[in-house]
Amino acid sequence: MSNRRDFIKYSGLATGGLIVSNSLSASTNDSPKPKSGKSTKMKLTFRPYDLQLRHVFTIANNSRTTTPVMLTEIEYDGLVGYGEASMPPYLGETQKTAAEFLAKVDLSQFGNPFLMEDIIAYVDRIAKGNYAAKASVDIALHDLIGKIVNQPWHKLWGLNPAKTPNTSFTIGIDTAEVVKQKVAEAEVYKVLKVKLGRDNDKEMIKTIRSVSKTPICVDVNQGWTDKQMALDMIHWLAEQGVVFVEQPMSKLAVDDIAWLTQNSPLPIIADEALQTVADVVGLNKIYSGINIKLMKCGGMRNAFKMANMARMMGMKVMIGCMTETSCAISAAAQLSPMVDWADLDGNLLISNDIYDGATVVDGKITLSDLPGIGIRVKKGAAPKS
Amino acid sequence: MSNRRDFIKYSGLATGGLIVSNSLSASTNDSPKPKSGKSTKMKLTFRPYDLQLRHVFTIANNSRTTTPVMLTEIEYDGLVGYGEASMPPYLGETQKTAAEFLAKVDLSQFGNPFLMEDIIAYVDRIAKGNYAAKASVDIALHDLIGKIVNQPWHKLWGLNPAKTPNTSFTIGIDTAEVVKQKVAEAEVYKVLKVKLGRDNDKEMIKTIRSVSKTPICVDVNQGWTDKQMALDMIHWLAEQGVVFVEQPMSKLAVDDIAWLTQNSPLPIIADEALQTVADVVGLNKIYSGINIKLMKCGGMRNAFKMANMARMMGMKVMIGCMTETSCAISAAAQLSPMVDWADLDGNLLISNDIYDGATVVDGKITLSDLPGIGIRVKKGAAPKS
Repeated sequence: MSNRRDFIKYSGLATGGLIVSNSLSASTNDSPKPKSGKSTKMKLTFRPYDLQLRHVFTIANNSRTTTPVMLTEIEYDGLVGYGEASMPPYLGETQKTAAEFLAKVDLSQFGNPFLMEDIIAYVDRIAKGNYAAKASVDIALHDLIGKIVNQPWHKLWGLNPAKTPNTSFTIGIDTAEVVKQKVAEAEVYKVLKVKLGRDNDKEMIKTIRSVSKTPICVDVNQGWTDKQMALDMIHWLAEQGVVFVEQPMSKLAVDDIAWLTQNSPLPIIADEALQTVADVVGLNKIYSGINIKLMKCGGMRNAFKMANMARMMGMKVMIGCMTETSCAISAAAQLSPMVDWADLDGNLLISNDIYDGATVVDGKITLSDLPGIGIRVKKGAAPKS
Repeated sequence: MSNRRDFIKYSGLATGGLIVSNSLSASTNDSPKPKSGKSTKMKLTFRPYDLQLRHVFTIANNSRTTTPVMLTEIEYDGLVGYGEASMPPYLGETQKTAAEFLAKVDLSQFGNPFLMEDIIAYVDRIAKGNYAAKASVDIALHDLIGKIVNQPWHKLWGLNPAKTPNTSFTIGIDTAEVVKQKVAEAEVYKVLKVKLGRDNDKEMIKTIRSVSKTPICVDVNQGWTDKQMALDMIHWLAEQGVVFVEQPMSKLAVDDIAWLTQNSPLPIIADEALQTVADVVGLNKIYSGINIKLMKCGGMRNAFKMANMARMMGMKVMIGCMTETSCAISAAAQLSPMVDWADLDGNLLISNDIYDGATVVDGKITLSDLPGIGIRVKKGAAPKS
């Protein structure tokens, strides 16, 4: 989409590089060397957007046909970084709360986008919560930095793009006939994901197994209340080729979950029990692993820290998503070479994506070579005016 | 030193950037796009070098006037990344063991230097131990990558170069007159470091306090054996303006150290108790913080992970060094904006440094704007042939 802009960008980089390489001056916060040759400030803009779901989406407590998101952009020195906040209603954020939050974000005070640690700490201090809104700034900032250095984040993080995992694909709860049909349509995926925690759990699994041998991931969304019943169910699920069980019981039932993890034949993964960086240490020895979601933890920087931390503690790592465009999905996909399992199907569930980015090839997450988070605006999709 | 090479480099980047930005192809491990336009492989070379110490260096168990190091280079696509292994004799590595280890490292099997996680895991698997030799590869790799993207690592890590700490400066154990003279010479430093753990600990501190009010860091190198005596001493040290105490007792005296940490008025920092990434979790609640050294943990990648991990657990972070050239010191300095305390005086203690890099300005670590680890070969210093 931007041959000319890229050309200007890299010409500028060449000149800037020569100058920098011949000086040994002290780095300072407030003296950026803009490639355009004139002083510049980061500028954050945002607009609401409603994702149209291909199918009615049902989880334990509700059904819906759209997901509200906020699309962000950070402009700096002729480049634009893209970000996104996805706000499924059950998490409490809305386009209104995100707009209020983002209106308070003033990035012009920072000399340059590389001051990530400071910028993200500043954004985090603006208000409590608002993790999706915070993630939308973090993602746009990462996209911008990747574009400045002309590298995708998986490379800046030192990850091997060949090691991306398969993504699971969610099969919504529905009648047996519809479930069978959805499973048939999902043939390309190497892992299916099912939301359990209702009274028809075994029926759902049996329905899928009647037509498919594909491994299944199970997300209970805190739906089970008795630990012995949960353990019995997990034993049964293990026999059915289930790979792991996410958040089987309430996040408050810490002792029960620790007991489950100790006795379970399948890994027990924390989802609702986990918000962001500070929570990871406390989950060691209680869960087998964590499900990292950008919208929950505040973005890519926290996600990378959490993944590393979990690895250092010997925990499994899963990366998940909300219903999102290819913007937030591709951002999460940058991290995916270092996870055990990925559930990055959010962009596949919508009909009005406006970005091209990471794709799924034969069930496997496949990263683009584009810099930053690896996306570009789809041809024909209206860019922000 | 390399206007012409930089010019070729950035011209190449411009072209490569345009091509990459207009394709959305899947990333692969084995299809690098060399900027020089022809296929290229990473090539590691190394040579021994002996650092000449400005003063005889005495710690608890020995004295010496030189420190053997190994200087490494990774060449790729017309660029060279510099690394270094420093091997003070008490740690067990020598120029011979490093040469043997480095001779086994074959980087030509990796498609490009960005595959850091894989490359470092491969190097780590070659043999146990050899952390300094491993660090010399890791540092050169980081330097190379930073040069490819034309950014120093503190920027790629998102750290603010204005937040570098003061470095401490080590005052060796000596006669009262010599100590006073050394303290006077060290006037520019905002923190002094003293090795204790002998029978003249109080005398040493009193001698310094007779001529200076500068805050002091204390490194006991496991020298104290009785926890109550250690606590009494720490209380006394706190009254003398000491900032923290490093490794007061044997790393094996875990219960005693946990008790000390709980009761100490000063932070207790792990040094000998800590080798690398896997050890950090186990030190939580036992020590107040950790001293990260590149030569101990295997390099910058592990150091960054460890620093983040310690932060997430609420622990203090210190970055230390061996006697090193400005190569390894500048590599460590890249991380210093995120630490509480730095002890990066290794390059100040030698008379035959061959690199310019991070400097100390008014006691504060000051990063260069150079890409990678931020160094260049000193004018007149013989580069490797």
